[in-house]
Parts: sequence; structure tokens; C-alpha cells
Amino acid sequence: MKKRVGEYLMDCLSNTGVEKVFGVPGDFNLAFLDDIISRDDMEWVGNTNELNASYAADGYARMKGISAMVTTFGVGELSAVNGIAGSYAERVPVVAITGAPTRAVENAGKYVHHSLGEGTFDNYRKMFKEITTAQGYITPDNAQTEIPRLLNAALAEKRPVHLHLPIDVAMTEIEVDTAYEVPEHQPHDVSKYISMVKDKLESASQPVIIAGHEINSFKLHAALEKLVNQTHIPVAQLSLGKGAFNEESPYYMGIYDGSIAEENIREYVDNSDAILNIGAKLTDSATAGFSFEFDIDDVVMLNHHNFKMNETVAEDVTLPDLMDGLLEMDYVNEADYPKFKRPEAGQYELSGDVLTQETYFKMMQDFLAPSDVILAEQGTSFFGAYDLALYKGNKFVGQPLWGSIGYTLPATIGTQIADPNRRNLLLIGDGSLQLTVQGISTMIRQGLKPVMFVINNDGYTVERKIHGENEPYNDIYMWDYKALPAVFGGEDVVKVHDVSTSEELDQAFEAIKAYPDMMHFVEVKMAMHDAPHKLEAIGKAFAKQNS
Amino acid sequence: MKKRVGEYLMDCLSNTGVEKVFGVPGDFNLAFLDDIISRDDMEWVGNTNELNASYAADGYARMKGISAMVTTFGVGELSAVNGIAGSYAERVPVVAITGAPTRAVENAGKYVHHSLGEGTFDNYRKMFKEITTAQGYITPDNAQTEIPRLLNAALAEKRPVHLHLPIDVAMTEIEVDTAYEVPEHQPHDVSKYISMVKDKLESASQPVIIAGHEINSFKLHAALEKLVNQTHIPVAQLSLGKGAFNEESPYYMGIYDGSIAEENIREYVDNSDAILNIGAKLTDSATAGFSFEFDIDDVVMLNHHNFKMNETVAEDVTLPDLMDGLLEMDYVNEADYPKFKRPEAGQYELSGDVLTQETYFKMMQDFLAPSDVILAEQGTSFFGAYDLALYKGNKFVGQPLWGSIGYTLPATIGTQIADPNRRNLLLIGDGSLQLTVQGISTMIRQGLKPVMFVINNDGYTVERKIHGENEPYNDIYMWDYKALPAVFGGEDVVKVHDVSTSEELDQAFEAIKAYPDMMHFVEVKMAMHDAPHKLEAIGKAFAKQNS
Repeated sequence: MKKRVGEYLMDCLSNTGVEKVFGVPGDFNLAFLDDIISRDDMEWVGNTNELNASYAADGYARMKGISAMVTTFGVGELSAVNGIAGSYAERVPVVAITGAPTRAVENAGKYVHHSLGEGTFDNYRKMFKEITTAQGYITPDNAQTEIPRLLNAALAEKRPVHLHLPIDVAMTEIEVDTAYEVPEHQPHDVSKYISMVKDKLESASQPVIIAGHEINSFKLHAALEKLVNQTHIPVAQLSLGKGAFNEESPYYMGIYDGSIAEENIREYVDNSDAILNIGAKLTDSATAGFSFEFDIDDVVMLNHHNFKMNETVAEDVTLPDLMDGLLEMDYVNEADYPKFKRPEAGQYELSGDVLTQETYFKMMQDFLAPSDVILAEQGTSFFGAYDLALYKGNKFVGQPLWGSIGYTLPATIGTQIADPNRRNLLLIGDGSLQLTVQGISTMIRQGLKPVMFVINNDGYTVERKIHGENEPYNDIYMWDYKALPAVFGGEDVVKVHDVSTSEELDQAFEAIKAYPDMMHFVEVKMAMHDAPHKLEAIGKAFAKQNS
Repeated sequence: MKKRVGEYLMDCLSNTGVEKVFGVPGDFNLAFLDDIISRDDMEWVGNTNELNASYAADGYARMKGISAMVTTFGVGELSAVNGIAGSYAERVPVVAITGAPTRAVENAGKYVHHSLGEGTFDNYRKMFKEITTAQGYITPDNAQTEIPRLLNAALAEKRPVHLHLPIDVAMTEIEVDTAYEVPEHQPHDVSKYISMVKDKLESASQPVIIAGHEINSFKLHAALEKLVNQTHIPVAQLSLGKGAFNEESPYYMGIYDGSIAEENIREYVDNSDAILNIGAKLTDSATAGFSFEFDIDDVVMLNHHNFKMNETVAEDVTLPDLMDGLLEMDYVNEADYPKFKRPEAGQYELSGDVLTQETYFKMMQDFLAPSDVILAEQGTSFFGAYDLALYKGNKFVGQPLWGSIGYTLPATIGTQIADPNRRNLLLIGDGSLQLTVQGISTMIRQGLKPVMFVINNDGYTVERKIHGENEPYNDIYMWDYKALPAVFGGEDVVKVHDVSTSEELDQAFEAIKAYPDMMHFVEVKMAMHDAPHKLEAIGKAFAKQNS
């Protein structure tokens, strides 16, 4: 059947499950956008800028398993690189499509707008090589091999890929004989590694699993829980990848974040003699500056493309294969371990005093509903929220490895549009919100109903805790935050709440529950230097790391 | 004398004339920011995000000749690459400083936040190689050679440079023996090329100079005018680099933009037999899609690192050397040429009808004051404004080669802060404003008083003119634009004007003149499909180029 290359690309993306495409129009992609908006199975989500589009695409992919975005050559694609690099770091598969000048313009080396004006056209493609797992220059001849190769790479690696799509190529017709299908998982034998793991476990008296973000990327939650139910090995969760393990499981111990973990968890993990690090990365932010005290020789790394146990290192392994192998392993733990204690409800007194961070997160714990999606911005929000006890049905989105402030606001566009009926809670602070604030307009435009909590405490608190507590560079300008929804066209569809005390937060919670079909914007005023205690500790660790 | 590397860097920057540093704090640059805020000769300008910081730095450099910005590793520097690439394309020297993890962290390959989590630390540096003219990894040992090398490169090439500054390096003390000084221009002999130019001119009956953006970059305005006064060669101005030549000069003919130029200018230039292209680049947007009709064999390219005349090509020449050579040339033109006719004032009737683009720009022409700085956003604003007749004292800032929408709003932070007493007029449209809107907050925070004209015509008009005139991807969401200044903390310092008719625009102009010490925000409503006639023509040319 004859199809334009652009049409074929959208057919392929549709077959991966993509239903929304994020981006910003530009003259080198406009004609291709026609092949998006003309489809019944696809919707174009116009973003206010490309960075926001990349964050939205990241959020969508965290929910749906993959996403796509379209920008224009140069100005557009380069505005998105921070978001794409974040997706690379945290293993989120985003298909980044650049609508580009025609091959004729490129071959003639013309001085066209959005080029560097030197007749070269490969500069941006080289830049994307550093932050994507595969890249391709699409032509009519290679479309049916390159597009499947790139989508397969995104799905296999759970990382972004870059498609350079000259606009004349997008509009060229090709004869399409076979439709793209997502390849099935081809199992590979990892039994020699698994038997090493089993030996390690059998000689151990205090085994533990540390679960991390790759479980989320590969959507191996059910497999991990099955493994734990079979083996009875207790699980500690890193903040990087929170939600990887079911926090309602009897085998859940709690968050392990190095020296600042709850004492019983810290003691158990630090003294463990068999630590299975499954899909987890021991980063500085996840471990309070590498403050783990376990013997690194007792750690088995079970990561995508990285099995490591003492001197044995293998890069030809995938996380799904390792998980399959673990599920075949015949081993049952008998050691006792500290069980996670879910916090009891109502651990606070409502009052008219200034709301504290501590009370804010205790109240948030009680407000949390079993199927909420929680997005916690790197800063006070993340460092408070990662200690929330989740329900099995919750989804938690943070970005502690990449740590790009401003990320969660547009990411909420993506998570919420992936499932408009699920309640999304966005926890963010003023400093972060200022970077990407126009994303609120896209939420309103798309009719989304997230609940936004904006901490107004007058500055970059996370930076204050690291260096320059009272220095002017950590100040931000005071905005009238509550007026934002109306400015962005949401006067009639967004309920705005003004919160300075626990009593007012309680009232806001009640109103949110009473009006589930509205978007809510809650400004939460707190004192400038108040912070979750874990942020204080991590700030000190980061300051030390920088000296 | 003992100085920290960070101190030494700021000493060097101060010696180039930099007085403001733009950026966003992050933990890998915080300690270095102390070496900025502690100085009496330097001010830190905190931006709301890094892309806005890069645009502000670009605007500042266009006024002052060089600028500096500071971001953090990864998340920060990558958010700025679009702005830096634009500075590269349009030859604007911005010193982009990245505060980075310590050398110890890098050498150990640690998994730290803002890295890709793979133990590699050179990915972003490689990306900056594509969009900067020089790059350096600063250490205590090389600081006194690398920093001068990089600043010299920025000044010599009028292009951005990238400094990777590990935070431990910034804080390390070194023994500084000599202060950095901006090197004086070392003239190089270009007489063999100039004699070729002279021969060409002497055999020509209709010579012309086309002036472009490199004149602005190298600040060769006085030299160019002197050359023209000596040689009597008439000048046509490209839109790319408008302001390069004094539009009040008797030798000025007007704008040359290929097939859409005024007929007498087009005929003169297209039939010229000696075209000196001085610091000008014949890009698609400057020539309505390469629609020039002169004989390319009659063009002499006199660009930085590119002298080209027939078969003679030289890359070892600089624009200042070429200009010096031209000034020594003994030649006087005697051919007649069409002189620029400044538009007469009052070429419109005030009325209560919907304001048209045509009337808007006619009125803007009369409103223009002799020392205004005009920033015209790529879109209706630029394509209308580049036909404005400037005074010698005006400065015009556009970005038609790079063409990144949203650029001019934060660029105005830079141009205005470079000289707070000069009136800055920002002409922008709604679609562009949405990308970088939070820059308004920085204007207010810094106490700047620009005059902003925001065209509200419900979408990306420049895209509509290229493709998809009524397609949903060219729609944007309607905002309450007039409420923006108050939201961003400027209720008391910004006068807001609501304009839908020429009568209202006239009243707004009067109020702006009456309150020169306030910032003004003018929302100008115009019809969706109304556009300057040159935008219509260029839209068609771009559409054709993409087919």
C-alpha cells in the first residue's frame, strides 16, 4: 500500500501504543503534523515550548511505556535536549522527531533559518548522539528499516531515540508491505549468573533486595513482587525509582537512603551479606552522598546491561532476562527483617499556626488515595514525598538522578493525559514552578484536572540547604501564584486554594475531594528555611561532595 | 597575588567590560556565585530559567560586545543550548560557564545527580563543541592560559565559548601574576584581496554594498559609514543585521530582501555589476527564499574568515582586516542610485476600527525615537519592523537567521540592563511570548522599564502563512495577557494598555511618553490572518523551499 513516510511513521508509533504526540509546530514539521491530526487514533498536544513538550512526553512515557514528540530543526530540538537527556538518564523511552529542511536544501548546503548559517546540517544530530540510545536520518529508502530499528531500540533500552526527518521525506510516498509490530521479548540464558546469585543467597544470613528505577522503566513490578513472594527476600526501596516495589507487601521494609534511612532499615541493609540491587542505581541523591556502609563485595548488581558480582561483569544481559532467571531460582529466605510500619492516620493537630513541612507531608499522607499518581519535584517536595507510604495502586514520578527543576509541572501534562480519569497530585515549589509555569496553560487547554500543590517559601530551598542559605542568588521574585490559573485561561475550570495553616490545608483537601471534576491549584505558604529533615541531610552531603 | 580560580575568571570577565552575569543557581555553581556577588563591579542577574538566561546574555552582548552566563552541569547548561547556538549562528559572543562536579567526582566516575548516571562526564562538553567557537576544561594549572584563550576566541570570533568549571577548581587558589587584558587588533595585510575589489569596482557601472549582521557583531558601524562616505557606494541593508548601516545616510537605499524588495532597490541591486557583500549572509529569510537575481559572479563576499571573489577564496582573513583594507582603497563611485525615502509622518487615519498590521507599523514608525533600542520577534513583528526607517542612534535586534521564537522577550532583559536609561521597545506576538513569558518577572525584579507590545492574534501567524493556515496545531490557548505583569509582581510598576484600534494605540503611545519611568505592557489585538505583506511573501517562499 502507498503511504507517505510520515504516515508510515505514525502507523508504527500507533502500534507501540502511542496515542498523543507532544511538541511545537515549526515550518520544517508543519506538513508532517497533518499526518498526525488527520488520524483518529492519535492526538496532537501543542505545548507552549519544547522543553515543556519534552517533559510532558517523559511523563506520558512513564505511564504508557513510550511516547513521541515533534519539534522543528535547531531551535526546537535543541530546546528539548535537557528533557531528552533526563529521559536518557532515568530510562524513559521518548521518540524525539525533528522535522528538518529538505534533503535538497541540506545537500546544497544552503544558508537557511534554524541552521548555524555555515552550510552544515549535522551539528544537532551529533549532539543528540550523546543523549539518545539510537539515532537515524530517515529517507524514503530506509524508512521501513530505520523506523522499526529506532522504535525497537527505544523499547529495548527504555531510552530516547532521535529521528531526523527531512520534511520532503515525510511527504514522500513509499510502498509499505508490512506493518510494524512491537517485537516479543526473546529470552536469553542467564542461568550461569543466576546460579552465582543463588550461591550467594544460600551462604547469606541477612539477604535484601534493593529495588530501583529500572523496575519502573521495564514495568517489572509484577515480576518483582512474584519473585519476592517466592523467595521471601525483604525489599528496601531507593528514592530513585520509588514505586518499583509494592509498599503494601509484607516483605517491604521501607526506603533505604544510606545514612539517613530509618535506623532499623539502615542497620539491616548496611549489615546485609547479600544485597541484590535489582534495577537500582546507587546515586548520590539516592544514598545521601554515597553514605551506604554495606560491603560493596556483598552487592550483586542486576541492572540492564550490567550484571556484576565480585569480579564477574556482564554487559550482554537485559534486566527482563535477569528477572526471568531470578524467577526460576529455587531459594527461600528464612531470616527475619524489620517490617515497614505504615504511618497511622491523623498524626497531627489542625491549627491556625504557620504550616510546617513536617505537618504538610503528614497530612499529604492521609490525603493520598489508592490510585493517585504523585509527581514530586526535586527539592522540598521530592525529599518530603519520597517518604510517603504508597498504596500498591499509586504511581510515583520523581527525577532524582537527572534532577532538573521545573520538570514535574509539564510532566504532569503527560501523566494526566495518559489517563485523564486518574487523580494526579503535583507537588512542586515556587522556584521550580517559575521555570516551566506556562505548562499550566496546556493543562487547562487539554481539559486536564490535576491537583497542584505549590509551596511558596520564597526561593530555591534545595540550594539554600547546600550553600548560600541567605545569599541573593537563592532568592526568587515573589509572584501572585494564585492568579496564574486565571491568566492562563482557567478562571472557570480551576479551583484556587490559599493555604497558610494546617486548618486551611485540611479545608483545601475537603474541597478537592468535593470537586473531583475540577483542576485544583493550592498555594501553600511555608517558612523560608523550613524543609523536610531529609533535605537538610542531603544538602549537607552535597555540599561536602562539592568541596 | 593569590586568587581563587573563580575570582580570577571574574577579574578577566570584568576586564572585557562585562558588568552583569546571567544565569540560574545550581549546587555545582553556588560557591562560584559567591565570587560574583562579592564584587562591586559585577552584578548577578538571576533568571527564571536557563534558556531565558541565554537569551538575556545574547541581548546584553549585542549591546556591550560580550556577556557571560552561569549554569549548572547537565540540566542547566543543556537548557541553554538553543540560546547559545543562536548566538553562534548570529555571531554574538557569550561566555557560557558551567559549574560542574569536582574533578574527584568525575575521575571516580561517580553516579551523581545531573550526570547521565553512567559514570561519563564529557557528554555535554561534546555537545557544546558543535555550537561554540572554543571550549575549555578549566583547572588550576591551566586557568591562566585557558581563560584568556577562551575570552580571546569569543572576542575575535564574536561567538560563544564554553567553560567547564569544576566547582573545586573555582575554589582553588592560584598565584596570579598578570591581569588579563583584551588584546589589541593585530592588523594583517589583505591588500591583494582589496586590489581585486578595487579592480572590480573600477570596471563596474552600478556598484552596491550589501550590509549585514557581522557589522553589528564587530561593531564596525563607524568604519562602514566612513567607507561609504569616502567611496560614495550606495548601501542596501539586509534584514539580517538591520542597523548595520546608518539609515539616515544619503548613501542608504533601503532594505534588500530579494524579490520582495521595493522595485527600485531590487532593480538596482539585481542589476548591479559589483556587489560588495560586507559582513552579510544571503540567507533564505533575508532574501525571501534566495530570490536574488543578481549574477553571483558579480558578488564579492567580504565576511569574517571568508573573502570570496570568483575563484579566489580566503579563509585566513578577518572582517576588521577587510574593513581596514577597504578604508585604504582609493575609489569613488559616480553612478547614481535610488535614495531611501523616509516615510512621512501621519500616513494613517486614527479610527475606532480594528487595528491592522499595516497601520500598526505605520504608527510605530512615527512613535520611534532617535535612540530607541527595538527588539523585533521573528514573526509578524520582525517582518513588519524590519521595514521601519531607523535613526542613526537606534539599535535593532532581531534573530532572522536563528529564528527561535520567544527569543526577544528575555533578550530585552539583556539589552535593557546593558543601558537602563535607553528606551527599549519589544515587539512580540502571543505565540512567541508564551515560550518565555516568565522573563517578564525578571524585567520587573531588575527594575527595568522596557515598553512591550504584545500582538494578540490568536496563534502562530508566521506558521499559518507557511502551512496549515487554519489547522489546530497553529492555534495557541488564549491567555489574559494584560494580567501578566501583576502576576509577575509588577502591579505597581507596570502600566498596562489595552489596544484594539488605532485610536487606542495612539492613546497608549501618549501614555508611554507621559510615563517614561514606568514599564509599559501593551496588548495589541489584531485579526488572526492579518499580517505584514512581507510575511505573506516569505511564508510562500518557505513553503516552496519545503516541498
